[in-house]
Amino acid sequence: MEVFDVYSTDDLQGFLKAKSAEGWEVVGTVSRPEDVEDVPVISCSEFQWDKPVIVVIGSEGEGLSLETQQQCQQMLTIPPGRVLHPGLDSLNVSVAAGILLHSICSQKRRKGD
Amino acid sequence: MEVFDVYSTDDLQGFLKAKSAEGWEVVGTVSRPEDVEDVPVISCSEFQWDKPVIVVIGSEGEGLSLETQQQCQQMLTIPPGRVLHPGLDSLNVSVAAGILLHSICSQKRRKGD
Repeated sequence: MEVFDVYSTDDLQGFLKAKSAEGWEVVGTVSRPEDVEDVPVISCSEFQWDKPVIVVIGSEGEGLSLETQQQCQQMLTIPPGRVLHPGLDSLNVSVAAGILLHSICSQKRRKGD
Repeated sequence: MEVFDVYSTDDLQGFLKAKSAEGWEVVGTVSRPEDVEDVPVISCSEFQWDKPVIVVIGSEGEGLSLETQQQCQQMLTIPPGRVLHPGLDSLNVSVAAGILLHSICSQKRRKGD
């Protein structure tokens, strides 16, 4: 069995702000790029992992609040393979998290780190 | 709502054999490459999608039978980010399927098809 520590915070936005100030890269995630205001959105496959990173994943259905998005330096999205019907999310949050983390880790492997 | 057809077969190995003969590429999936005999195993990120493909995904825990593996031209695996404890599978089958399909589709996008 594998065991790792789990931490929680009552002040997510304050936590992210503090970590940004310490040099962490804070990246959010979004299923519909049009829901994001004032934060750049890129495909998960374009993300360059070159410093300590915090990946923020929202709740299923709701995603990240605008206030939390504003603490992110950029937002990652999983590009669909084809045009989807409006309002159609095809991935649940655990599958989306798996794809995002695999995609980020693959970037690092490709660079030979 | 999105609707698509679902098909089933009582003879998976016969089905795969017939599809291979018709020119489909049949690729299996495996979590532990050492479980595979006589079929080449590659990382999902190395797979080149250049013809019609059937991805065969096994049941959770058991994976594909040796008889089904023998109908596959190659096997895909998701490389772990680090060395895992023996016997530790960290992904359930829906997350693994999401990562595999995203990885395959990304290959095609990168080639500009």
